[in-house]
Amino acid sequence: MVYLTRRERFNAAHKLWVEDWSEEKNVAFFGKCSNRNWHGHNYELFVTVKGEPDPVTGFVMDVKQLSKLIQSEITDKVDHSNLNLDVGFIPKGMQPTTENLAILFWKQLEPHIEGCQLHCIKLCETENIYVEYYGG
Amino acid sequence: MVYLTRRERFNAAHKLWVEDWSEEKNVAFFGKCSNRNWHGHNYELFVTVKGEPDPVTGFVMDVKQLSKLIQSEITDKVDHSNLNLDVGFIPKGMQPTTENLAILFWKQLEPHIEGCQLHCIKLCETENIYVEYYGG
Amino acid sequence: MVYLTRRERFNAAHKLWVEDWSEEKNVAFFGKCSNRNWHGHNYELFVTVKGEPDPVTGFVMDVKQLSKLIQSEITDKVDHSNLNLDVGFIPKGMQPTTENLAILFWKQLEPHIEGCQLHCIKLCETENIYVEYYGG
Amino acid sequence: MVYLTRRERFNAAHKLWVEDWSEEKNVAFFGKCSNRNWHGHNYELFVTVKGEPDPVTGFVMDVKQLSKLIQSEITDKVDHSNLNLDVGFIPKGMQPTTENLAILFWKQLEPHIEGCQLHCIKLCETENIYVEYYGG
Amino acid sequence: MVYLTRRERFNAAHKLWVEDWSEEKNVAFFGKCSNRNWHGHNYELFVTVKGEPDPVTGFVMDVKQLSKLIQSEITDKVDHSNLNLDVGFIPKGMQPTTENLAILFWKQLEPHIEGCQLHCIKLCETENIYVEYYGG
Amino acid sequence: MVYLTRRERFNAAHKLWVEDWSEEKNVAFFGKCSNRNWHGHNYELFVTVKGEPDPVTGFVMDVKQLSKLIQSEITDKVDHSNLNLDVGFIPKGMQPTTENLAILFWKQLEPHIEGCQLHCIKLCETENIYVEYYGG
Repeated sequence: MVYLTRRERFNAAHKLWVEDWSEEKNVAFFGKCSNRNWHGHNYELFVTVKGEPDPVTGFVMDVKQLSKLIQSEITDKVDHSNLNLDVGFIPKGMQPTTENLAILFWKQLEPHIEGCQLHCIKLCETENIYVEYYGG
Repeated sequence: MVYLTRRERFNAAHKLWVEDWSEEKNVAFFGKCSNRNWHGHNYELFVTVKGEPDPVTGFVMDVKQLSKLIQSEITDKVDHSNLNLDVGFIPKGMQPTTENLAILFWKQLEPHIEGCQLHCIKLCETENIYVEYYGG
Repeated sequence: MVYLTRRERFNAAHKLWVEDWSEEKNVAFFGKCSNRNWHGHNYELFVTVKGEPDPVTGFVMDVKQLSKLIQSEITDKVDHSNLNLDVGFIPKGMQPTTENLAILFWKQLEPHIEGCQLHCIKLCETENIYVEYYGG
Repeated sequence: MVYLTRRERFNAAHKLWVEDWSEEKNVAFFGKCSNRNWHGHNYELFVTVKGEPDPVTGFVMDVKQLSKLIQSEITDKVDHSNLNLDVGFIPKGMQPTTENLAILFWKQLEPHIEGCQLHCIKLCETENIYVEYYGG
Repeated sequence: MVYLTRRERFNAAHKLWVEDWSEEKNVAFFGKCSNRNWHGHNYELFVTVKGEPDPVTGFVMDVKQLSKLIQSEITDKVDHSNLNLDVGFIPKGMQPTTENLAILFWKQLEPHIEGCQLHCIKLCETENIYVEYYGG
Repeated sequence: MVYLTRRERFNAAHKLWVEDWSEEKNVAFFGKCSNRNWHGHNYELFVTVKGEPDPVTGFVMDVKQLSKLIQSEITDKVDHSNLNLDVGFIPKGMQPTTENLAILFWKQLEPHIEGCQLHCIKLCETENIYVEYYGG
C-alpha cells in the first residue's frame, strides 16, 4: 500500500457567524473571524489516496487525473468564492470552518476516486493552522 | 548601511471592481477577482528599514518596536478586514490591488520610522505573486 | 473524527551532555552538540488534537484557546530559555533532545485539553530533523 | 514510542516509458513525463524511524548515523543520476515513479536500521506531489 | 515605481559538459553535474516587472498576462525538457548553467513586455542556489 | 552582470547584553534576548557574488567553491557555537546581533572571493527577521 498526495490551492472569503446567536455572542466567540464584511485566506489542500502501484505503470493513480478531479469537484467551485454564500455543496448555515470544509471536501471527492481509495483530506488555513480528515 | 526586515502577516477579503465599468467589463478584465461576493488572501508583509547599527546595541532599529509599529499602523487595521469596505486609509474607489496596498502601507508607516529610514514594502498575495515598493 | 493542528514557535539554547560520561565520550557521542558553551535552535512545535466538530460552531476546539494553552504550558516556559538550566518541567540531567522534549511537552499539555483529545506533538529542531510523539 | 524523521535531498533525471507500449501510447498515458530526452527533479526524502528514546542519551537513534545510512544506501546512489539508467537497485524496466522509488528506498534502507524500526519513507517529487510508504 | 513579481515553475534535465574538454577535465571541473546520463531539477523562476500602477485598475501589469507570457515564451519550452538537447533558444554548446539560463530567459521575455519594463529574472536551481539577472 | 547566491545554515547560541549597563537596563532594552543563560537560533545565511559568467563554463563562480569558502571562513567557526564566547572573529563586547554578524561575515569572506565580487550577505535569524549588508 502506497499513499499518494496531491496539493491544490484556492483563495476564498468567509466569516464565522451563527445566525441564532446575537452579534455580541458571535463576536465574543469567534473574535475577528466574525467580521460582518468577511475576511479571507489562501487555502492549501492536500488530497491523499492509497493503493497498490500498478505493476506496469508504477502509478497508484494518475496524479494528473487526481489533480483534475480535485479541481472539478472542489477547487473550481471554491476558488475566488465566498464560502458562506457561493458554494452549492456547503449547506447554508453550516459554519465554513476548516474542520467542516475538510469533511465536505471528502464527501465531494470520495465518490469519484476509482481504482484506489481516498485516504485523507488535509486543509491548511494559514501557516499555523490545519486540519486532517480520514472519513468515517 | 545595514537593511533590516521584519515580516508580519494578515488575512483579508477584497474584490477588484471598477465602479465606472459595466459588470461585463469588470469580469472580462479582472476575471475571478471580480466576484461580487468577495474572495480573500493570507497576505505576507515584509518591511525593510536601513541605517547604521548602533555601536553599543548593534541595532539598526529595535525589531520589536518595528513589529509594534507595523501592527499599530497597518496590520491591526487590515487583519480580518474587507479591504474595499473596512479600512480608513484605503481611499474609497481605489482598487485594493497588491500594488496599491504596498504604496498605501508605505505612506501609513513612513512618518513613524525614527532613527533610520524606511527602505521597502514587500507584499505577497499568494506564493506566486508579490510586489515591492521603495517610495518616491 | 477531525484532527486540528496549531503551530507555535520558540527559540532556545541547549547542549547534549551526559554528566556520568567523560568529556571525550560526550564529544565522541554527541559531536558538536556537546559544545560546553551551548548552541541553539529555532524550534517549530505542531500540536494536534482530535475530536468531532461541534455541530453549531464547526470547531473541534477553539484554535485560539489551543494556542493560548500551548503558550502558557509550553512556549512561554521554553522561549528564549536554556533548556538544560531554565525550564522547571525538564528534569535535571535529562538530555533535552528533540525526542525527550516532545514527550515532556505532551505531559505538560495533555491534562489541559478539554472537550477533545491530544493526538500528537510534533517538534522540528531544524528543517532536516523532527520527531513526533502520540502518547502512551 | 517516538518517531524520528531525517530529511535528505537529491537531484536526478528520469522518464516514464513502458517498453512494451508504442510511442503513441506512452505519450498518451504519461504525457510530458515520457519525453525521450529525459526531464528531472529535486527530490526531497524524509525517512522516519520509531523506537523508545534511550534513557541516558535521549536518542531513538543517532540522527547523524541515520543521515549517513540514508546517504550511503540511497542518496549517494541516486544523486545526480539518471534513475532509468544509472542505479543498480532499480530493476531495469521498472518505472521510476515516485511510488516505486519509495518502495525501493524502503528495501534498500530497512536491513540497515538497528536498535529501532523503519516506519516511513516519504518522497516528494515536486512541491505538489509526494508519496508515503510504510512497508508491507 | 512598483515592482511586480510572478513565480512559475518547471522541471528539466541537463548536464554540464564542455565538448572541447576531455572527460577527465569535465569531471574534475563539473563534478557530479557532468554525469553523461543527465540529472535534473525542479526550477523556480521569478520574473519581476516594474512600472507605475494604472490609476484605474491599480495594475502595473495584468499578472495573468505576465503568467501567460512566461509560459508561452519560457516554461512551455523548457518544462519536462532536456536543456542541452530540446530547447530552440538555448544555443548548442552553451552550458545550461543557472547563470546562462537567466540571461537567455531575459532575452526570450523582454521583447514581449509592454506597458512596463522587465526588471529581473531570478532562477532557483535548488533551495540552496539561485541567480538573478537585471539585463545589460 | 549576473548575481549568484548560495545558502548555508548554522545553529548557535547567543545573548544580547551590554556589559556597561545594569541588569535592569539590559532586560528593559533587550527583553527576553538578554536571558543570562543564553538562547539560540537556526540561522540561514545567503551569500551573493556578482560577475560575468565565464564564456566556456557558464559560471560566475564555482558554487561548490563558494560553499566551501563560506564553510571554512564562516559556518565552520559559528556552527554549534556560542556567538558571545566561542568565535575568534567576533570582537569581545560586540553585541552578536544579526546586523553585526552580517557585517563581520562580510569582512570574513570578502578577501577570499576571487574572479568575481562579493555583493551581499543576507542573514535570517527567524522566519520573521533578517538583515542584508552590501559592504561599505
